[in-house]
Amino acid sequence: MTPDEFRTHGHALVDWIAAYLEGVGDRPLDTRVEPGEVRARLPEHPPPAPESFTAVMRDVDEIIVPGLTHWQHPSFFAYFPANTSYPSILGELLSAGLGVQGMSWITSPACTELETLMLDWMCELLDLPERFRSTSPTGGGVIQGTASEATLVAILSARWRATAGAVNRDGDTSRLVAYATSQAHSSLEKGLRIAGIGTDRMRVVPHDESFAMRADALAEMIAADRAAGLVPFFVCSTHGTTSSMAFDPTDEIGPICRDADVWLHVDAAMAGVAALAPEHRWVNEGLEHADSYCTNPHKWMGVNFDCDLYWTGDRSALLGALSILPEYLRSEAAEAGAVIDYRDWQIPLGRRFRSLKLWFAIRCDGVEAFRSMVRRHVGMTQELAGAARADDRFDVVAPHPLNLLCVSLRADDLDTANARTDALVEASNASGEALFTRTVLDGRSVLRVSVGARTTERHHVADAWRLLTDLADRI
Amino acid sequence: MTPDEFRTHGHALVDWIAAYLEGVGDRPLDTRVEPGEVRARLPEHPPPAPESFTAVMRDVDEIIVPGLTHWQHPSFFAYFPANTSYPSILGELLSAGLGVQGMSWITSPACTELETLMLDWMCELLDLPERFRSTSPTGGGVIQGTASEATLVAILSARWRATAGAVNRDGDTSRLVAYATSQAHSSLEKGLRIAGIGTDRMRVVPHDESFAMRADALAEMIAADRAAGLVPFFVCSTHGTTSSMAFDPTDEIGPICRDADVWLHVDAAMAGVAALAPEHRWVNEGLEHADSYCTNPHKWMGVNFDCDLYWTGDRSALLGALSILPEYLRSEAAEAGAVIDYRDWQIPLGRRFRSLKLWFAIRCDGVEAFRSMVRRHVGMTQELAGAARADDRFDVVAPHPLNLLCVSLRADDLDTANARTDALVEASNASGEALFTRTVLDGRSVLRVSVGARTTERHHVADAWRLLTDLADRI
Repeated sequence: MTPDEFRTHGHALVDWIAAYLEGVGDRPLDTRVEPGEVRARLPEHPPPAPESFTAVMRDVDEIIVPGLTHWQHPSFFAYFPANTSYPSILGELLSAGLGVQGMSWITSPACTELETLMLDWMCELLDLPERFRSTSPTGGGVIQGTASEATLVAILSARWRATAGAVNRDGDTSRLVAYATSQAHSSLEKGLRIAGIGTDRMRVVPHDESFAMRADALAEMIAADRAAGLVPFFVCSTHGTTSSMAFDPTDEIGPICRDADVWLHVDAAMAGVAALAPEHRWVNEGLEHADSYCTNPHKWMGVNFDCDLYWTGDRSALLGALSILPEYLRSEAAEAGAVIDYRDWQIPLGRRFRSLKLWFAIRCDGVEAFRSMVRRHVGMTQELAGAARADDRFDVVAPHPLNLLCVSLRADDLDTANARTDALVEASNASGEALFTRTVLDGRSVLRVSVGARTTERHHVADAWRLLTDLADRI
Repeated sequence: MTPDEFRTHGHALVDWIAAYLEGVGDRPLDTRVEPGEVRARLPEHPPPAPESFTAVMRDVDEIIVPGLTHWQHPSFFAYFPANTSYPSILGELLSAGLGVQGMSWITSPACTELETLMLDWMCELLDLPERFRSTSPTGGGVIQGTASEATLVAILSARWRATAGAVNRDGDTSRLVAYATSQAHSSLEKGLRIAGIGTDRMRVVPHDESFAMRADALAEMIAADRAAGLVPFFVCSTHGTTSSMAFDPTDEIGPICRDADVWLHVDAAMAGVAALAPEHRWVNEGLEHADSYCTNPHKWMGVNFDCDLYWTGDRSALLGALSILPEYLRSEAAEAGAVIDYRDWQIPLGRRFRSLKLWFAIRCDGVEAFRSMVRRHVGMTQELAGAARADDRFDVVAPHPLNLLCVSLRADDLDTANARTDALVEASNASGEALFTRTVLDGRSVLRVSVGARTTERHHVADAWRLLTDLADRI
């Protein structure tokens, strides 16, 4: 492709994307393809000669797009928000066009420095503790690909601190114990497993009826493990669980961790962005106790995946855990301590210029746009909760402080209720009009309504509720 | 930003990228910014109101771009190739525009199925063993973000197999031992550390004068560890080391690993793509023995970062190590085994539609374009090696079978030679005319010339050599 062809095709693709995003609400949400169907429609072997961009885009239209679940659809209420914005898409494009590597400061200084500044901007916009700022003596932030990676980095930092660094040499994790509720994200178990902390040493702390951690139970479990000669080293407190948007009481958990010298990671992947709005800053409660914290603009702030913001108050533990310096990556600036080398703040070595999309979004759309979006989503969810509460066919089964509502169909016994709720999820998703996710909360089948697409308006939520209530009568 | 503004600004940005890439060769390669300088030129606080796209692009031009190292510059000979292509950039743009999640088949079937097909296409184009294909009974491939992640995934698969899965529960890695040479990539030590294999149990296998692993030494070390009651579990054989492009003898290492029941990972991040050209298929030697393999189209095949291809012949170990299934991610298709859920093939949960950029590159530019590029880079490197060999001021200090040349300045003693070579790297990089990386090979300072930018032509290499020889006289 020549530069001029790139110009032509690039313009066409930009127009295609605008049309896709403007029209996505008219598409059926749920793809009807069977396993293997997309692949079967594509050539089994690579083409021997170049093809035209037009031919490729024809396949995008006819084969790829019909095989997608449209996450940007205004009636997408499944999983979690994954909204994007036009400036963010352009930020991704610029990152791809520049094609620079930001693994070290020296490999492209602007890539590192803009990222550090964006983390500090976000610290300010979310009103996070001062000690997470890059300008603090011991803290700082970085863009991780995902909250899964943030959790793993937190575990590794904690593991390093609890063993005074010995784990890097002896790999001995045999006495380390971690704590979270059953509602913590699956990436916690995965991260612990990766770090050599088997499930035998992952304690499931009981939760209360709001699915939040019971701090008293945590304190007892830590004490029991300590008495047994084990080393409690890591607690994950979730601010907004995936299943039900529960908030663990970090203000109570924090002092327990401090007294027991345990690393406290707060995972607010889905909900932390709510703090853009001052009235939702309660989501930050207890963060002054956290050793590390993450939230995802790629979920609820219109920034394209991947953009997880990770902060720590103890960057020496992070660097102790992850820093490796081969000869071919040495630089004077890094050795003088004058710069940040983000490769030492993450699992991979390579990294692209991800802060551009956050910078573009904040500057071009403005923070007020994202603040308003958060408020709109929360408002619509509360209205929906009111309707669900007023409808005696439904139970609202968990607190819904933000943009996630969990409902179940009622029945005389639990098994019937669960079967009916499962059938409701299946039937509503099969309609193609809206998409929801099923989960299970303490044995109860639940339909989750996650309100978070950029273009979701009140009428989309109303239509979704009408769909659910219509189906409820027929199940 | 409205859809119409997106169209306008998107077109402008596409044009900007074309102009940047066409003109990048005219820019000084090495940024002259001091630590903190980029940040100091940007506002310390986020803007209270939206700004125009034009204002943002003005800052890109005036502040960001002057703070970059231009990895797409034709005189970029540093680190490793990280070339991109116009179709690949458009593939990234489309991925950003669609904004779908590919963590599970069900979350966007086309995202998973196109990726599987691309891995099979690449298997064919690189002439890899059949058992890496998705259609084989036990194998398959996936796009990882980086080779670092591929290495970690390989280690975790090996750890699971060596402990028959027990590690997931007990986290006991205390007897496991891993093997590689000192020339293996730093991500190996980092990955082992993450997986709870401390440096105490990472054996550095001696290398020969070509910096390749000595298979006889590996066999002895494995036998000694086994005799001592330890469990050899992982060997990393590198096909094209970062420092000097050395090739470990996988055809000899393979049988040793098979006899000792040790997982063999082959890391060809930088060089594996050479197999696009049949005459370079020797880079695959021994792959029939490998349990896992990776190479990076984002290095040498014009595909934007991040695109590491990872194949395994033992997907049950991979799934055993990484699969976690919470309720909210269950699906019928996955439970029936009819589909691949790539979240279980990688460290993170979330993943974007990364196969688009590979598909776009192969279809729009055609494989022949990348094959020619590989041949051109190898040819220019060999010509350069000839010039270096003919120049008695220089030593060629390692084999140079592909596109990396390692040279040192001569002197009467090693210290002086090293000091002169270090000074040469510094002076040449300070010129802004070309960029190289320094490394150390067995105590010897080395200037690496990595020939891999898409637009590098013979005259760029000639100019770089003239720069080096001119400076050599003055050092």
